[in-house]
Amino acid sequence: MSLRHFFNPRSVAIVGASREKGKVGFEVLSALVEGGYTGKIFPVNPKADEILGLKCYPDLPAVGAPPDLVIVVVASKLVPMVAEQCAALRVKAMIVISSGFKESGEQGKELERQVLNVARAAGIRLIGPNCIGVMATVEKVNASFAGKLPAPGGIGYFSQSGSLLAAIVDMANANGTGMSKLVSIGNKADVDELDMIRALGEDSHTRVIAGYLETIADGDAFIRQAERVSAQKPILLIKSGGTVSGARAASSHTGRMAGAETAYECVFERAGVVRCESIKAQFDYARALASQPLPAGNRIVVIANAGGAGIMAADAIDREKLALATLSETTGALLAEKLATAANIANPIDLLGDALADRYEIALRAALDDPGVDGVLVMLSPHATTDCVETARTIVRVSHEKSGKPVLASFLGAAKISAAVTVLREGGIPQYDSPEAAVATFRVMVEYSLWRSRPKRVVRLFPVNRRKVELIIDRHLRQNLFQLGEMESKEILQAYGFVTPKSAIANTSEQAANIASQIGYPVVLKVWSPDVIHKTEIDGVKTDLTTSQAVMDAFDLMMYRIPKKRPGINIPGILVEEMCHRGREVILGMTRDPRFGPLMMFGMGGRLVEVLEDVAFYPAPLTAEEAKEMLVRTRTYQLLAGGDGGGEEGVDIDAIAEGLQRLSQLVTEFPGIKEMDINPLIVGPSGTTPVVVDAMIGLEPTMTT
Amino acid sequence: MSLRHFFNPRSVAIVGASREKGKVGFEVLSALVEGGYTGKIFPVNPKADEILGLKCYPDLPAVGAPPDLVIVVVASKLVPMVAEQCAALRVKAMIVISSGFKESGEQGKELERQVLNVARAAGIRLIGPNCIGVMATVEKVNASFAGKLPAPGGIGYFSQSGSLLAAIVDMANANGTGMSKLVSIGNKADVDELDMIRALGEDSHTRVIAGYLETIADGDAFIRQAERVSAQKPILLIKSGGTVSGARAASSHTGRMAGAETAYECVFERAGVVRCESIKAQFDYARALASQPLPAGNRIVVIANAGGAGIMAADAIDREKLALATLSETTGALLAEKLATAANIANPIDLLGDALADRYEIALRAALDDPGVDGVLVMLSPHATTDCVETARTIVRVSHEKSGKPVLASFLGAAKISAAVTVLREGGIPQYDSPEAAVATFRVMVEYSLWRSRPKRVVRLFPVNRRKVELIIDRHLRQNLFQLGEMESKEILQAYGFVTPKSAIANTSEQAANIASQIGYPVVLKVWSPDVIHKTEIDGVKTDLTTSQAVMDAFDLMMYRIPKKRPGINIPGILVEEMCHRGREVILGMTRDPRFGPLMMFGMGGRLVEVLEDVAFYPAPLTAEEAKEMLVRTRTYQLLAGGDGGGEEGVDIDAIAEGLQRLSQLVTEFPGIKEMDINPLIVGPSGTTPVVVDAMIGLEPTMTT
Repeated sequence: MSLRHFFNPRSVAIVGASREKGKVGFEVLSALVEGGYTGKIFPVNPKADEILGLKCYPDLPAVGAPPDLVIVVVASKLVPMVAEQCAALRVKAMIVISSGFKESGEQGKELERQVLNVARAAGIRLIGPNCIGVMATVEKVNASFAGKLPAPGGIGYFSQSGSLLAAIVDMANANGTGMSKLVSIGNKADVDELDMIRALGEDSHTRVIAGYLETIADGDAFIRQAERVSAQKPILLIKSGGTVSGARAASSHTGRMAGAETAYECVFERAGVVRCESIKAQFDYARALASQPLPAGNRIVVIANAGGAGIMAADAIDREKLALATLSETTGALLAEKLATAANIANPIDLLGDALADRYEIALRAALDDPGVDGVLVMLSPHATTDCVETARTIVRVSHEKSGKPVLASFLGAAKISAAVTVLREGGIPQYDSPEAAVATFRVMVEYSLWRSRPKRVVRLFPVNRRKVELIIDRHLRQNLFQLGEMESKEILQAYGFVTPKSAIANTSEQAANIASQIGYPVVLKVWSPDVIHKTEIDGVKTDLTTSQAVMDAFDLMMYRIPKKRPGINIPGILVEEMCHRGREVILGMTRDPRFGPLMMFGMGGRLVEVLEDVAFYPAPLTAEEAKEMLVRTRTYQLLAGGDGGGEEGVDIDAIAEGLQRLSQLVTEFPGIKEMDINPLIVGPSGTTPVVVDAMIGLEPTMTT
Repeated sequence: MSLRHFFNPRSVAIVGASREKGKVGFEVLSALVEGGYTGKIFPVNPKADEILGLKCYPDLPAVGAPPDLVIVVVASKLVPMVAEQCAALRVKAMIVISSGFKESGEQGKELERQVLNVARAAGIRLIGPNCIGVMATVEKVNASFAGKLPAPGGIGYFSQSGSLLAAIVDMANANGTGMSKLVSIGNKADVDELDMIRALGEDSHTRVIAGYLETIADGDAFIRQAERVSAQKPILLIKSGGTVSGARAASSHTGRMAGAETAYECVFERAGVVRCESIKAQFDYARALASQPLPAGNRIVVIANAGGAGIMAADAIDREKLALATLSETTGALLAEKLATAANIANPIDLLGDALADRYEIALRAALDDPGVDGVLVMLSPHATTDCVETARTIVRVSHEKSGKPVLASFLGAAKISAAVTVLREGGIPQYDSPEAAVATFRVMVEYSLWRSRPKRVVRLFPVNRRKVELIIDRHLRQNLFQLGEMESKEILQAYGFVTPKSAIANTSEQAANIASQIGYPVVLKVWSPDVIHKTEIDGVKTDLTTSQAVMDAFDLMMYRIPKKRPGINIPGILVEEMCHRGREVILGMTRDPRFGPLMMFGMGGRLVEVLEDVAFYPAPLTAEEAKEMLVRTRTYQLLAGGDGGGEEGVDIDAIAEGLQRLSQLVTEFPGIKEMDINPLIVGPSGTTPVVVDAMIGLEPTMTT
């Protein structure tokens, strides 16, 4: 259902309208009037005849014609009754500004539930409670006490914090930042971030969606909604409160390494959402995305009238991993011909301190015409002879003539450039008070542009033996066992197409030697116990055994020593396993985030995985490209690709990526798997099959297969 | 020599003063007059009788009484002559604003040399050329065309970029930021960053030294000067242009891993200098350091009147690795008693949206009184009923009454808070437009405070055999060999107290077997060749040989295979070496920065060192604390300390730190050593001695021992 009755109602009633200045019931009414709202306004107040020249009504039914939108500012205990009246009148939308609901304890929670039930039953959409209202600038609807309506513009904003929204309104008004809709979603009883992303996505005035969130209710729906809308418009979010939450208990390396922020980081990335660390950064990005085209690549030209400023911008470009564009020979020749001889015609282009608007025009035209340039940062330092305003006008004019590539400005200073900054703003050129802020914005634009042009996501489905996995998991659950050991984990992985070494369990040293001679030497012995997750920690692994004597000795030593280290341990047997060919050790893993579902992990494997922290996370299900990208993000990738300078052969990258996809399929098809590690997976040269040398799986105690 | 003649001259001459508005010669003169300078002013211009009511002189000698300070704005080719006149008149100081010197090519370079020679010979201090001048606010000296004099205050600034300084002056004037001295050092012919740091360090009006640098002339002197002055006042520097420079050629892992920025990062850290990434960050930090006391620790309290703002601040505190202070029981009880019942009296303290100044006063007093609190961030969101100005006044008053702990403010919004922001500024409370900026400032204050309170640096000198090292190095230099192989590098390290395994060179496989049986099995064979630096890359290492047959086979295989891989390679022999006990592999190394001298490196060792990038750098000579701190900074440290969750025994940390100190002594005493690696150094449990398993040393081709 659309939210249009909030943004463009034909009539509005304010229940709890007040005559008293300073009271919310007065401020909201007067904001609506002063904002220039052109529809009908019905103040509801049994103790007043008129307020601000508008006729007052004793209660909602007395209004007669049902209003599209009802704004509620009465005490929380009265709100359920108002909701009933709205339902009776077939009102379309309510904004409940009143507080005293879920945020204030059990009683409030119950009130909120009552109001929501009434609204849901009557098909009324509800914003709030405990919010500061809604603004729609083009429609001249100020149904809030957040301040004056900002100028119309392309940025839509929703906020879980009302006071933050009030501060944003104040800043937008002071800086002339154009906004489309601003919504305080308060307790999110009904309208939440999903509705807002959809509504702002559909809103023709909104070019950029920005928001502040403290919680996300439905992780799965969030991913889908955000991914769909991001394909049309950028979404810039501040997600706060994340770093405060503690680590979760986990047995797997993967679970232990997934921090509180990991899920948000990789889910936002998957959905194309730009995560912002501060309001300032969010508006830095939003202003450019609302007014400038997306860059096709990361090659930036800097134009400046001072060497120092150009160097600072070049430093920032390097830090943000963008590229200083290399100008074409044609561009170089053109600049050399037309600019002052002492000017630096390489990038950054230094027009020198006496540059007037004409030199800026030459450089900007040349840069925008150069096919090797994806975006331009124009910097200006106000020297004594600089004509700031004319330069700003020129930048606006040239960038409009040659649209297609983003142009950002960073004029330095304050009073001397203030008139020019107004010209830039009105001309749609975002201005930044520092080159660093402008370059960070370019980075975000490039990343979003890349995300938009990524290939269509196709998740490959492998033929697998699902039934076998069901049986193994069910068997464990029936026995209340939630931790699968190496043997069982490997059986599950085999069913999903993974290769494991030949192996069998031995109960005596003689049996171990027999198994070893059947498998063929060398072999590995591993303790097999439901009480042990990380075997090497208790010296439960002995590798490279080449004789039957060595196998028997190793068997007996484990049986003797391990119970001394871990008294009471249950050791049903010892695993005798084929020794793998040598290769690189990597870890593949999964941990299930309670909100966003399975997060896949890839990294350098072995015992040091948690120390090295060289891992990458991404939400399942994975496409081939995403699996490959996870590999590329790690330092380990250099080694795997054979690029460590030693001239060594690389390993089969695609085989690892396929392993990640198979694992992704497993954990997607079995939501009861809570966490798992394959560590190590041994990978060899191209054409060889990776081998699962060890693995563990943890189940959700509540699972049903 | 002091720079007081620049900052407080009794008389000033302006050579090249002009009547024409817009010309530099007019702008500088009028700036001096309008700035309220109270000394004598002598405009020099042969074509004018008076300018701005001041009598003009045809040339400098005509002035009669020699001026303290001469400002030069004539064409560059005339400047040597003006300098001669200054010398004849015994002028104390010159500011050469004119450009056309070193920055403009060979001819200008020669002119600059001439001017400098005259000035040096006559004892004249010179600022510039190619600069925009000098400002001293308290003294009312505006000898510049950088704009109007900012308000007096505690921040001193010097800049290698004139246009940047002009932008800073414009911003300081717009924001009311108080400044002491502002100096454009231009081409730094005479007065450079060292003079500026010293002068601002001695200046009683300057509480914080800030600067913008593109180059540092004398690295060694910079470290000493900055370290000395940082102990008194914070130094905040932007060093730009760093990231653009390319990597240097290096054979050692250490040299290859030291990026263009490594030297600046660790030298600034050693000297207590705060490196800033942007002008905005620099002023964020400077404003707090100029007006607030240093925090004793990192425990911060956040006071806010909105939940969202408090959470954002708490997130930032977490990201910046500061701590949210835990309030004492007394404080908690006090707040519970005096604040609104619904207020959150934990940290962040949420005073609720209707908080007035009285609630802020209660919370701020309580926080400042709590011994578990090191600093307070006061946030305010402008709600309808908020009294911003009165709250600001209260914060100023309480923080003055209870001085000793830093108080920073972050009032959100714009128009609604502008009057309050003025109150805060005038009361010396730094205000930040976002909690993130305030918290980043706290981080810098905490780090600087820690640096100030670090123990006195004591570099231990070990008894060593310096003569032996001299002999080895001289022998190589005489033969024009600049790369020392494993054997020679180990001899040098032995002379500095390192332990190496027993070993000898074999020329035949039989000899290898003989040596092995004398050393005792198992042994390692390593190719010994002046043409090889990283032996494993050509399979030139074979470990764990347990029989004479294995030794002979390995010898012959190397002799057969390596020349096939590297045709023409010279292999004088093969090293037979005692096999080391197992332990952790670490790398100790050094690379000599051309500007700052030897940089020590520590990290996880082995072949993967460059892939893992788990290393720490610090300039030599190292103290015991610094060596230890290098270890702690790596992820490897967790492993070494035995903290990887496996319950394994840790290694002898102090022995590694001693190794770093010995290496630091070696490279300090032998400046001809250009780079070196000890990789790996095998380290065992406490009480065992680390063993150098492999090492390489590179010499400077120009060295003399």
